[in-house]
Amino acid sequence: MTLSVLVNGKRPQDLGHALPLNDRGFQYGDGLFETARLEHGVVRFLDAHLERLRTGCVRLGIVPPDEATLRAEIASVTENLRSAVVKVIVSRGVGARGYRPSGDFVATRVVASYVAPEIEPDRALQVRWCETRLGRNERLAGIKHLNRLEQVLAQAEWSDRSIDEGLMLDTEGELVCATSANVFIVREGTLLTPDLRYCGVRGVMRAQVLLAAKKLGIASREEPLWPHDVDVADEVFLTNAVRGIRAVGAIGEKAWTRRAVADALKAELRA
Amino acid sequence: MTLSVLVNGKRPQDLGHALPLNDRGFQYGDGLFETARLEHGVVRFLDAHLERLRTGCVRLGIVPPDEATLRAEIASVTENLRSAVVKVIVSRGVGARGYRPSGDFVATRVVASYVAPEIEPDRALQVRWCETRLGRNERLAGIKHLNRLEQVLAQAEWSDRSIDEGLMLDTEGELVCATSANVFIVREGTLLTPDLRYCGVRGVMRAQVLLAAKKLGIASREEPLWPHDVDVADEVFLTNAVRGIRAVGAIGEKAWTRRAVADALKAELRA
Repeated sequence: MTLSVLVNGKRPQDLGHALPLNDRGFQYGDGLFETARLEHGVVRFLDAHLERLRTGCVRLGIVPPDEATLRAEIASVTENLRSAVVKVIVSRGVGARGYRPSGDFVATRVVASYVAPEIEPDRALQVRWCETRLGRNERLAGIKHLNRLEQVLAQAEWSDRSIDEGLMLDTEGELVCATSANVFIVREGTLLTPDLRYCGVRGVMRAQVLLAAKKLGIASREEPLWPHDVDVADEVFLTNAVRGIRAVGAIGEKAWTRRAVADALKAELRA
Repeated sequence: MTLSVLVNGKRPQDLGHALPLNDRGFQYGDGLFETARLEHGVVRFLDAHLERLRTGCVRLGIVPPDEATLRAEIASVTENLRSAVVKVIVSRGVGARGYRPSGDFVATRVVASYVAPEIEPDRALQVRWCETRLGRNERLAGIKHLNRLEQVLAQAEWSDRSIDEGLMLDTEGELVCATSANVFIVREGTLLTPDLRYCGVRGVMRAQVLLAAKKLGIASREEPLWPHDVDVADEVFLTNAVRGIRAVGAIGEKAWTRRAVADALKAELRA
């Protein structure tokens, strides 16, 4: 449920009529987004979210919105809230028909707070393998852009509510991520996560987990991983900014009980 | 310039506040579009556009809007117009935050007419090779979905107004299309066009050209093509629903003067 919204700094009178018709976000998915967690009245890792958003704008050639303005708008939509999901969408803005992003665009900013989902942080996740693959394109890899049909189709694959998430491979069969989380495995004490050189999103929580591992003296590597690496892993966990670190209990027939590394990282991030 | 618009059958009072905030078209590019040509007051190949839109909805699991309603809305936004571009966008509709397309969505319909571009139908096009590649994903190949960042980035590569279009390869180097057109080549009297099994849009004009070739007794094949096939072609032309069939005069250093097949197909389609 939407709690509070600003579109270009203004509260829409009617959420049903809030966005410009010729916004390139709607016309072409020409933009980026961030989804962050408000906890105890504070947006967790806000600097990292804003930095990834800025990086994404540079990669797409979108003039980034003023950061102080975004921070003020985020403060406004989370005023008096303790817990929420904060979503920021930045599109290239309103333009004439046609793909060409020429001319003086002013980015559209949508800053909104939503009711936070119920999370049972210690329950191990039930995960499946998705059939929908991720196309490879280095130009779009890593950034959180608005072209998300692959994730939509992947989540449409199952309706069984006992399944929490699905792991996705790219079209060559390499492991990339879950539909809305990054994936880590532990093998002989080393933390491994896909390097995302061809696709996937460089999650804010993923970066925090890699930092936390360093602090704890846990060796980690970003490298190409395959389904077999998951099958033989000692531990598997998923990360995202809203749900944090979540141990995986099972993927299909295969089950895990070990979660020591996930728990240590979670404790480090809480500290 | 936007001439006339209906959003879910209603004329927005203000184009700046026309779309629902939580529309999945804006949030995830979760939808499809069609761009058609109104000529002499008639939408060319309207049946084929509506059929492709319906096919795209089925592929994405979107409940297609009622066809009679769409036809009535197209008639409404083109009333009293002789020439225009007609654009129809169908998104999955308004939903809660999150990729999952579950629940009873009602597709959002945006039907709009725009001023038609000036076209010099007989001028041969100046074309370049784009550096931006198209990711491969069979799940999305062929349909005209709203995830169009690759085309946006490709068109951002050049600002030289003497260049009309850019040819795009997929990430494996196969020829796919131009940024907003399909591509055909003629080799020893046979018409060839990429088969689009991994990416690209099955253009309405592309299908008409293949039909017209059959009528004229010109052999044609849809098959994998590579840049070299373009280099050694006798003739090259581009097709799209708004601009029709356009002979290519040059791609970079390489020039063509032959256009007999393109001209014959154009005459057949006019007939």
